[in-house]
Amino acid sequence: MLPAILSSPSSSSTSTFPLRYSSPSSLTNLSSLPLTIGCRRTSKKSTHNNCSIRVQASSRMIEKETPETERPHTFLRESDEGSSGDESSKPNSVRARFEKMIREVQDSVCAALEEVDGGGKFKEDVWSRPGGGGGISRVLQDGDVFEKAGVNVSVVYGVMPPEAYRAARPVDNGNTKPGPIPFFAAGVSSVIHPKNPFAPTVHFNYRYFETDAPKDTPGAPRQWWFGGGTDLTPAYIFEEDVKHFHSVQKGACDKFDASFYPRFKKWCDDYFYIKHRDERRGLGGIFFDDLNDYDQEMLLSFSTECANSVIPAYIPIIEKRKDTPFTDEHKAWQQLRRGRYVEFNLVYDRGTTFGLKTGGRIESILVSLPLSARWEYDHQPVEGSEEWKLLDACINPKEWISPSFGSHPEGIE
Amino acid sequence: MLPAILSSPSSSSTSTFPLRYSSPSSLTNLSSLPLTIGCRRTSKKSTHNNCSIRVQASSRMIEKETPETERPHTFLRESDEGSSGDESSKPNSVRARFEKMIREVQDSVCAALEEVDGGGKFKEDVWSRPGGGGGISRVLQDGDVFEKAGVNVSVVYGVMPPEAYRAARPVDNGNTKPGPIPFFAAGVSSVIHPKNPFAPTVHFNYRYFETDAPKDTPGAPRQWWFGGGTDLTPAYIFEEDVKHFHSVQKGACDKFDASFYPRFKKWCDDYFYIKHRDERRGLGGIFFDDLNDYDQEMLLSFSTECANSVIPAYIPIIEKRKDTPFTDEHKAWQQLRRGRYVEFNLVYDRGTTFGLKTGGRIESILVSLPLSARWEYDHQPVEGSEEWKLLDACINPKEWISPSFGSHPEGIE
Repeated sequence: MLPAILSSPSSSSTSTFPLRYSSPSSLTNLSSLPLTIGCRRTSKKSTHNNCSIRVQASSRMIEKETPETERPHTFLRESDEGSSGDESSKPNSVRARFEKMIREVQDSVCAALEEVDGGGKFKEDVWSRPGGGGGISRVLQDGDVFEKAGVNVSVVYGVMPPEAYRAARPVDNGNTKPGPIPFFAAGVSSVIHPKNPFAPTVHFNYRYFETDAPKDTPGAPRQWWFGGGTDLTPAYIFEEDVKHFHSVQKGACDKFDASFYPRFKKWCDDYFYIKHRDERRGLGGIFFDDLNDYDQEMLLSFSTECANSVIPAYIPIIEKRKDTPFTDEHKAWQQLRRGRYVEFNLVYDRGTTFGLKTGGRIESILVSLPLSARWEYDHQPVEGSEEWKLLDACINPKEWISPSFGSHPEGIE
Repeated sequence: MLPAILSSPSSSSTSTFPLRYSSPSSLTNLSSLPLTIGCRRTSKKSTHNNCSIRVQASSRMIEKETPETERPHTFLRESDEGSSGDESSKPNSVRARFEKMIREVQDSVCAALEEVDGGGKFKEDVWSRPGGGGGISRVLQDGDVFEKAGVNVSVVYGVMPPEAYRAARPVDNGNTKPGPIPFFAAGVSSVIHPKNPFAPTVHFNYRYFETDAPKDTPGAPRQWWFGGGTDLTPAYIFEEDVKHFHSVQKGACDKFDASFYPRFKKWCDDYFYIKHRDERRGLGGIFFDDLNDYDQEMLLSFSTECANSVIPAYIPIIEKRKDTPFTDEHKAWQQLRRGRYVEFNLVYDRGTTFGLKTGGRIESILVSLPLSARWEYDHQPVEGSEEWKLLDACINPKEWISPSFGSHPEGIE
């Protein structure tokens, strides 16, 4: 009977939230903060720091984090720090160098933001997980220049669930139960929302993944890949700002491969797409994921270069726009665009949606949301207005810098 | 190779948004506005009213709506209005009577809200779809009492996709291609956000579904079911308000079946659950779905009774709280709770998420979002404070009225 399913009683229960690994690739698309992956199911009851009223058990796909009072030297497991003879366990392993890089980026970005802000200071939360890994969340809220700025690093030791494993390597014999796949992930992730409606929001995230060597074949090579990006979300377009931002991204890309900027610029436009609005969140930048078809050292350097490009790409724009006079109407438009930011992050962003489903550290995941946002019914900017121009550029992504600029300094097509 | 999938290039494309019918029952859980179901894929280019800059094509799962200048007498297809001998085509069919009921409810609720507000007036948008059906969206924004109030009715002629059909009735012979299943749905849906932080938000939605008789067996009975509910979301608890609200819901339920209130009260607590916060959106009310195991006339009367209970349940509370003096801190807490409202609606609400994926009328779907919302990093109410009490009740749902009240007037257990 048709309606037997259509009126399935299971629809009445939302407490058994289904975690679907419909696309294993979603595991690798953690553009938001933090890298809340890992599916070691524990039977622990949920406990909530500083809030004794949390009493209900909830199934978690990731270990509950524990607050720490001090930043550890490293979030790597001891076995990753050089005690074994395994290549990845040495202090100069990619794991170790990537963690060092993202922590330095966190320090430098936070220092630069505090300097621009003048009054605001970052609040820091350090946390770890019993099975290894942890993170540092830093948030500057309600500063002089910034409404909300989150800069997080995290290191995750996770286990990919059998569902993803089966999808990755189908098992013909239904009796063979595939085991979980342990993996390592580390990343820096940040969203910075300024107060002034003429000063743009920026987001960046750089991350590194490794799967552990299979237990039955310990000599087999580990698999690894890099992902990341930096993108700009203004409420108003200043063409010189957007060009500057994209030029710095292009400059970082061009040091490594002339194909990177055009490819990753398009990837960014495609990724930050609010399907139900048929518009992008902002004016893009670069975005890449699952990158492993280049030399590993090259990609580590490339990720480092990109992460280090955030300050020169963004801070000069903030310096220029932070004190621009504005009206209530400008502010309301910024708040409406912040609403779109919320829509993208909660509905589409794979890092956020995956993090919410797997039980990551909620406050770190949702620090990407603006301090305030607004939804007006059926708001339509007047054609030709500055608001309309921004919307137009979100709907029809533009090339902000000439394709021949930079990568072809001689102007040769 | 495992990582081949994990680094699947398809992850780079978000423009091919997958519409997954992983749970056919999700089709029946349209608690939000409007009833944006229907999967007639058209090749139409997306056109956007009043906004000539929309030029990109997008695949739609539902026909694009057309604005209308006048409210039609009915949104039913002519064939549903009595020209054929089919039972459902008569003017007193359940389809016709349900549409009449929801339009009357829309009128009465809007009139009551305008009266309470004093200054604000509803703006109306009427729209239809070429293949039949349509809706009336009414929004009162930035009134004297209400920040944003949306009251929508819609009538949808949709087609369930073969995927849902297969899930509903598995076809053993792989060569048999099941056809799509036409269905009818109608509903009223509303979210009302007041300005005063002591005046609660309310949401209600009542809907009716019918599948068309199969073409090959025209005499076969149509399948039908009812769904709906009314729930309260305050930022601060006034126990007398919550008790009044629940008592009115219980009174409506008890006229029909003594088991309804306890069952639908729990269903409501289960449905409006923000999994990643381990808390409910608000203080509940009633919620039911897929209801077809009672007499159809009884359920039509029950839905009507529930919908007509919104005004007596809600308006007295607003009258009492709309002018209560408040501080910036009270307002900020209300805004934070509005943020949770946004989280629930965008992440979990089946009507909203399904509507976003299928290309329903976005402004009608997202009118449920508050005019403004707020996200503070790691906000923790002080234990024992009024804010803490609200959060506690969202985490640990309470029985607001004694189980023996009303349904057992003699106090017999």
